[in-house]
Amino acid sequence: MKLLTLARDLRRRRARERQRLFSAEGIRTVEELLRSPLAVRGALVSPQLDLAPRGLALRAALEAAGVALLEVSEADFATAADTESPQGVLAVAAVPDGRLDDLVLDAAGVSRLLVLDAVQDPGNVGTLLRTAAAFDVRAALALPGTVDLWNAKVVRSAMGAHFRLPALSCSWDELDTFRARHAVALWAADVGGEDVGARAGDAPRRLAVAVGNEGAGISAACRERADGVVAIPISAAVESLNVAAAAAVLLYELRPPSLRPT
Amino acid sequence: MKLLTLARDLRRRRARERQRLFSAEGIRTVEELLRSPLAVRGALVSPQLDLAPRGLALRAALEAAGVALLEVSEADFATAADTESPQGVLAVAAVPDGRLDDLVLDAAGVSRLLVLDAVQDPGNVGTLLRTAAAFDVRAALALPGTVDLWNAKVVRSAMGAHFRLPALSCSWDELDTFRARHAVALWAADVGGEDVGARAGDAPRRLAVAVGNEGAGISAACRERADGVVAIPISAAVESLNVAAAAAVLLYELRPPSLRPT
Repeated sequence: MKLLTLARDLRRRRARERQRLFSAEGIRTVEELLRSPLAVRGALVSPQLDLAPRGLALRAALEAAGVALLEVSEADFATAADTESPQGVLAVAAVPDGRLDDLVLDAAGVSRLLVLDAVQDPGNVGTLLRTAAAFDVRAALALPGTVDLWNAKVVRSAMGAHFRLPALSCSWDELDTFRARHAVALWAADVGGEDVGARAGDAPRRLAVAVGNEGAGISAACRERADGVVAIPISAAVESLNVAAAAAVLLYELRPPSLRPT
Repeated sequence: MKLLTLARDLRRRRARERQRLFSAEGIRTVEELLRSPLAVRGALVSPQLDLAPRGLALRAALEAAGVALLEVSEADFATAADTESPQGVLAVAAVPDGRLDDLVLDAAGVSRLLVLDAVQDPGNVGTLLRTAAAFDVRAALALPGTVDLWNAKVVRSAMGAHFRLPALSCSWDELDTFRARHAVALWAADVGGEDVGARAGDAPRRLAVAVGNEGAGISAACRERADGVVAIPISAAVESLNVAAAAAVLLYELRPPSLRPT
């Protein structure tokens, strides 16, 4: 399939899942992609890319890496792009093959996982992945009801996090099996939970932290599995934090020793 | 001016500033607006609103509060709405008159302010206001270069925070005067700063926390004024956190005693 047609097609989740490919858009995201081990199939470039020095540098880096470039008009680029103000570069790359079964946890150290329990907003999910990578989370797991992790807006908001930490979809059953095999506890975030600051000191060595849907919160499936329920102390006048803001606080409080002062 | 024309006009920042009015869109935001002391000028409603029980309840609440309702078609509603999937309700209300000069800080207790130093993304700014309200921040201040706080997407992402905490625009000079008069320290967030966890214990009683632009970070104007520069410990492989995620961690670490376990 020609690259332009392919890139247009990849705006649909079904096409991404069938082809095991995704689009990475924008200068910064494509820079991060090039630095990653993922296989790049090709890139669309429009004249817009050459307007910024960083764009020119990226074009040279793509050429040096042997990536096939297809020059298209701004109008054609826009038909494949997800952004309103495209930067003139969109790369098509392979979704990593990683499966939950293959995930290796540090034998002795602290491991954190982030569980996305039907988180729906692509911007939130991208920010969640970016935050997870920043706090040395071992993997981010998308449970049913969560937006596709390879959606163009998720990839863009994640600022390269997809290329650094395993980002996988799985079922609750698969997560149950994995947690049982590797002795991973599950803590769910919910306004009615215990103060996370008070619980952080006795956090299990291997811990998956679950955050829920923007409107409905944690699902029944998550709640019945959780070994603990934690909350962030907030003003009584405010209903809740944004899910990505809440996860930032939780993953910070529960960060591994490598991110703590010695 | 007729309400539909007015609502269309208010999509422009200039119109909002001239009229001192803004639009609040969506069921939850309008519910929060109705609970606030702000004066509501009127509301556009489309048939969409009556499809949800919560929409019908909101219609009744608007009528009970004496708000003038204008019934419009979905097509007309869409010309005033900012969202792609409107919920059929958009209220026009007065921007509060508050000025920085009028802000009163607790004489004895801890006061936190959030300073937005050229934060540009409306979704980020809305989330920042929501987080500030959640962590009992006394006011959010938009410095030059920050997106208009009354932009429809900011209002929507803030989930009613505008109606709970003073959200004001000011210049660096005005902030200097206010800080001098009330003895408010300024800490800026920057990747090169000191670990915020290590500094939280000796945080000044009155403290403004500044976060910077999504790409460029803290401005020179902010940096030269800052009494301290703090950072969040993150993986060396990751450049930065999203600004709203970073602010959540900072405002959590620096939260007032009222949000700490006794």
